[in-house]
Amino acid sequence: MQVSTPLASAFRDGDFTAGCPTRTVLDHVMSRWAPLLLAALSDGDALRWSELRRRAEGVSEKMLAQTLRQLEDDGLVLREARPVVPPHVEYSLTPLGRELADHLVPLLGWVADHAGEMLARGPARGA
Amino acid sequence: MQVSTPLASAFRDGDFTAGCPTRTVLDHVMSRWAPLLLAALSDGDALRWSELRRRAEGVSEKMLAQTLRQLEDDGLVLREARPVVPPHVEYSLTPLGRELADHLVPLLGWVADHAGEMLARGPARGA
Repeated sequence: MQVSTPLASAFRDGDFTAGCPTRTVLDHVMSRWAPLLLAALSDGDALRWSELRRRAEGVSEKMLAQTLRQLEDDGLVLREARPVVPPHVEYSLTPLGRELADHLVPLLGWVADHAGEMLARGPARGA
Repeated sequence: MQVSTPLASAFRDGDFTAGCPTRTVLDHVMSRWAPLLLAALSDGDALRWSELRRRAEGVSEKMLAQTLRQLEDDGLVLREARPVVPPHVEYSLTPLGRELADHLVPLLGWVADHAGEMLARGPARGA
């Protein structure tokens, strides 16, 4: 008999099992570039493509497009065309995206504060 | 002239730029399986390999080994061999890993609470 149990007591039975919506969304928001893009937008300013590309240093055009489309489809990021000359597109967080960023930015802050010591300690085991 | 600016105002200049230790550690902790493994260990119990594999449903033996070794090298997970018959190995969070889990579990909780509605809304734009 297959018995399903929650990943941890903080979660419900079935959360984050393979194929579950929770797993799908987790994969989206923890993808390589999504955290950096959400963090870049967390200040509240609408940013243009070129600025997002600069902040998520190293991202390719293709991955930036793919990640932004995913975040847009998930309702986290709003894409707006500005009717100016020349026309351009701006990206900002939706209220839902802002909620997520409120959880994500402290996590990234923790990583920023501890990354140096973590890498300096070297492998836990001998080579 | 190349001007470096922080990803967002919450971070320092240079944080999360390509090749920076912060980016390296972020990639580790946001890798496909690390969040699930850290969450599984967040209850405080030491877990065996087979139990971790069950909780991170869908993980391969290879990726489980690779992710656990990375988390161990980063000082987030402790690997202990139990001198029992038959011998076995247990994994638990270090104090540093617990700090990280304290940020990660609420984030996963938010995802668990919102994943259904996020996927139900469908693509933001027409096909």
